[in-house]
Amino acid sequence: MSLSHTPVTTTSLDSASVLQRLHALIGDDLLATNRIIVAQLDSQVEMIPTLGSHLINSGGKRLRPILTLLVARLFGYAGEGHALLAAVVEFIHTATLLHDDVVDKSERRRGKLTANAIWGSKAPVLVGDFLFSRSFQMLVAYGDLKVLRILADACAVISEGEVMQLVVSNDLATTESQYLEVVSRKTATLFAAAARLGAVVSGRSEAEESALGHYGEYLGRAFQVIDDALDYSSSDEALGKTVGDDFQEGKITLPVIHAYQQGSAEERQFWRRCLEDKEYQAGDLQRAIALIHARGSLQYALQAARRMAEEAKEQLADFPASPEREALILLADFSVSRSF
Amino acid sequence: MSLSHTPVTTTSLDSASVLQRLHALIGDDLLATNRIIVAQLDSQVEMIPTLGSHLINSGGKRLRPILTLLVARLFGYAGEGHALLAAVVEFIHTATLLHDDVVDKSERRRGKLTANAIWGSKAPVLVGDFLFSRSFQMLVAYGDLKVLRILADACAVISEGEVMQLVVSNDLATTESQYLEVVSRKTATLFAAAARLGAVVSGRSEAEESALGHYGEYLGRAFQVIDDALDYSSSDEALGKTVGDDFQEGKITLPVIHAYQQGSAEERQFWRRCLEDKEYQAGDLQRAIALIHARGSLQYALQAARRMAEEAKEQLADFPASPEREALILLADFSVSRSF
Repeated sequence: MSLSHTPVTTTSLDSASVLQRLHALIGDDLLATNRIIVAQLDSQVEMIPTLGSHLINSGGKRLRPILTLLVARLFGYAGEGHALLAAVVEFIHTATLLHDDVVDKSERRRGKLTANAIWGSKAPVLVGDFLFSRSFQMLVAYGDLKVLRILADACAVISEGEVMQLVVSNDLATTESQYLEVVSRKTATLFAAAARLGAVVSGRSEAEESALGHYGEYLGRAFQVIDDALDYSSSDEALGKTVGDDFQEGKITLPVIHAYQQGSAEERQFWRRCLEDKEYQAGDLQRAIALIHARGSLQYALQAARRMAEEAKEQLADFPASPEREALILLADFSVSRSF
Repeated sequence: MSLSHTPVTTTSLDSASVLQRLHALIGDDLLATNRIIVAQLDSQVEMIPTLGSHLINSGGKRLRPILTLLVARLFGYAGEGHALLAAVVEFIHTATLLHDDVVDKSERRRGKLTANAIWGSKAPVLVGDFLFSRSFQMLVAYGDLKVLRILADACAVISEGEVMQLVVSNDLATTESQYLEVVSRKTATLFAAAARLGAVVSGRSEAEESALGHYGEYLGRAFQVIDDALDYSSSDEALGKTVGDDFQEGKITLPVIHAYQQGSAEERQFWRRCLEDKEYQAGDLQRAIALIHARGSLQYALQAARRMAEEAKEQLADFPASPEREALILLADFSVSRSF
């Protein structure tokens, strides 16, 4: 099969229609996953389901559990373990989001107030810890040490990535390769684990597991690079969070690295004042966005993400054509075609 | 054997001499545990060992790993798994402390600046997550699902206890039984798991596991009740943290519950102004300490803790006399004789 290369002009895959096609394939599995999520969020301590469900039912795309479910279906898996593992993956993701939003003091996510904006920072730290713990309880009940290893390893790598991101924040000497290392760890690792688990639950070969793991890794990288680019290009409404959050927080992402490296001495001084010295003036975000456009830095990030999405799709080359394989390819295309 | 009841006057067990006796029994095991801790703290991300070791090597008493090691020795365990499990228990404890100190905005612990006081709140949240994750990686490598279940369950109960504590903070309607539920979950659960693991690693019967689990549970309760009482009685130096921290944070602990319930209308008004309305005036801490002394509330807490320590010791009644059993009894006595 020849995998067509997406043209560099922006294709636009409508989020609703992509999700509709996925639901046609794994709608029942997603319902089963949601039932497990609701049941496992339960606790005698009322604040846990309240706060947990605020985020977990806030209209996230469920991309990570979708990966697990879709890969399991790709391999014709007929049991129920995939829905449990998909729920665990979503719990781990939610726990990291709760902690992320506390660490970043974020006000909005998915168009809603963050848990920390509503309840303060204490409860989200502790409810995040609960979700991590509950995830491991669910995995112990599932009882497969290999699955436990994949997710314990993923959690360690993710937290290392988060610390790494903290270390390089506000540092314009951050290289593209350091940035990609953070992206790989903090985002792509869980995508990779989610996809791999779909192969593990189906009892597939190490080579097949590995191909799906790589697919998830590249998909996750593409997804995060685009996510970071959107912070300088999207409208608040499309983004669901506040445009310019990364800029205000001094996060060094690909568009910034590119615009800084390509920038004039005066432009570099601007970037340093904002991101390193954290001395912001009125109009700085508008100037940052203008510089990023002028230097072609969004286009640069988009091209990088497209190469990653292509690498993701190439991992699927050896699998026979099927609706599930088409859906995995669609997900890769979707990851780089979100609204700019 | 008759277990002697500690008299109500304060016995004073010197911390150094207690630790010396323990080291004579399990000194080598503690060294092995420390080696594992150092090795497993390692990460490519330098900030993780830096921040982790700041707390983990800050002169904590290592009570929880000591429990695992001592119980394993009580049963004549001759392998090396106990040191690994002891290290995991200390990692989980350290992760909860890192998150606790962020949540409480604490400035000092064990006489040193807290991680959040030095590095801000972001890194301790993320390094805490790393320690949780690394713990589960170590448990997966150990490969015993029963051990994994005990610690995954413990982590979930601990985080529930932490959230519960948050919910009842600043609420003087908190009952003694609600307070004890928080103490049991947030502290005693890990003591219980640590002691139980010493029996599990030794392959003992369910009844023996359970007796040691109960021993740890009661020991942990006694320890925490005393810890909370010390906040109104100790000197800063003896406490290692700042006296009155709990008071400033509006934590509702046993001495406060007792003093409030026994207090006059005017005294209750004082407690409500401070702990519920958070309207503090100069001299409030001194007044709180005076009221707690006047109402016999420290003595009340001390008696409750002593009953718990006795219950802990009673769990050991069926085990033959041995230096390890004596050391476990000593630990129970020590837990209620720390300096007032």
